[in-house]
Amino acid sequence: MPEAGIDFWFTIGSTYTYLTVMRIDDVEKAEAIEFRWRPYSCRVVMTEQNNIPFNGKPVKKAYMWRDIERRAAMYGFPARVPAPYGLTEFDVVNRIAILAAQEGWVRPYVKELYRRWFQLGEEPSLPPSLPDALIRIGQEPKRVLAAAGSDATERAYKEATDEARRLNVFGSPTFVVAGEVFWGDDRLEDAIRWAKTGIHAK
Amino acid sequence: MPEAGIDFWFTIGSTYTYLTVMRIDDVEKAEAIEFRWRPYSCRVVMTEQNNIPFNGKPVKKAYMWRDIERRAAMYGFPARVPAPYGLTEFDVVNRIAILAAQEGWVRPYVKELYRRWFQLGEEPSLPPSLPDALIRIGQEPKRVLAAAGSDATERAYKEATDEARRLNVFGSPTFVVAGEVFWGDDRLEDAIRWAKTGIHAK
Repeated sequence: MPEAGIDFWFTIGSTYTYLTVMRIDDVEKAEAIEFRWRPYSCRVVMTEQNNIPFNGKPVKKAYMWRDIERRAAMYGFPARVPAPYGLTEFDVVNRIAILAAQEGWVRPYVKELYRRWFQLGEEPSLPPSLPDALIRIGQEPKRVLAAAGSDATERAYKEATDEARRLNVFGSPTFVVAGEVFWGDDRLEDAIRWAKTGIHAK
Repeated sequence: MPEAGIDFWFTIGSTYTYLTVMRIDDVEKAEAIEFRWRPYSCRVVMTEQNNIPFNGKPVKKAYMWRDIERRAAMYGFPARVPAPYGLTEFDVVNRIAILAAQEGWVRPYVKELYRRWFQLGEEPSLPPSLPDALIRIGQEPKRVLAAAGSDATERAYKEATDEARRLNVFGSPTFVVAGEVFWGDDRLEDAIRWAKTGIHAK
């Protein structure tokens, strides 16, 4: 774990993560704080914890879309809602994120997927959207899909999820600063304040 | 519904509502905006909607207490957590809030209950805490309990809950501005911004 900096734990498929993905680079520059992008499977952790945020809860789900739409407008970017919900190839896009984090292209990859999902209304885990997204950021789909499907990537995905669980990370986006967990795009500023004041840093 | 102003829907028993109850009077003064305190039973609505936030979810529940503790510190007041959770006489304290709203003493009542709950560690729905709280704010416990138990109060409690449901209010605290719903203490500032810019006000 870096001395300074914030671990940004996320799962592609989380709706509120769109807000963070679209603004985190600007926040990083403005605050001069480094974010480490940490993909994991929040679906595994949430299922274990009997934590089902929106499915079977139509009123809460409708609120979530409206809240995201309003907050995106507040931040200054669009959000086409409701976006397709429940990504078909959830694990594939997240295993690719694991690979992308190892190889150094996780940011453009995740941003491109979320842009397609929340601005174009595409289901970003399926063809043609997924291969198109990879090509657009300069990655060869066949190689990426093969590498993302490897045992090594599967192991790294599981290890990341195990690490998240150990840290008591249970949602996306989540920010971890010196062991303190901040859950939700709406806690990004709290996490930054924590990192800067460093009250509980060792 | 008032032309200006924000409806503050709440249920005594909600943990995050502590944060709002402790700061809303200062916010009201600073922002020159009026809040109308609207007690209802978010338990009824959440049960109908299969929405169980913390019970059976120990990791999320532990996070909630820590989050409240940190945010209270940020706002500048204490929070003794975990507070006793799951008020025994949930409906009694909320029916009293309905009566208190009708009679004009809802603010001191709710603040006193939350103070006992989150600062003294008392279970505020049981004796001696509940009668002591009533006496402290100048209300006679025997009269209040009788009036809160009346059919008229029960009807008003149900009507308030029905109105909340119609507005798609499903949690506590919730702020409603010209039909727009903002859920959570962390959306109070969004609600105020909405009220002031009035983008969607008729």
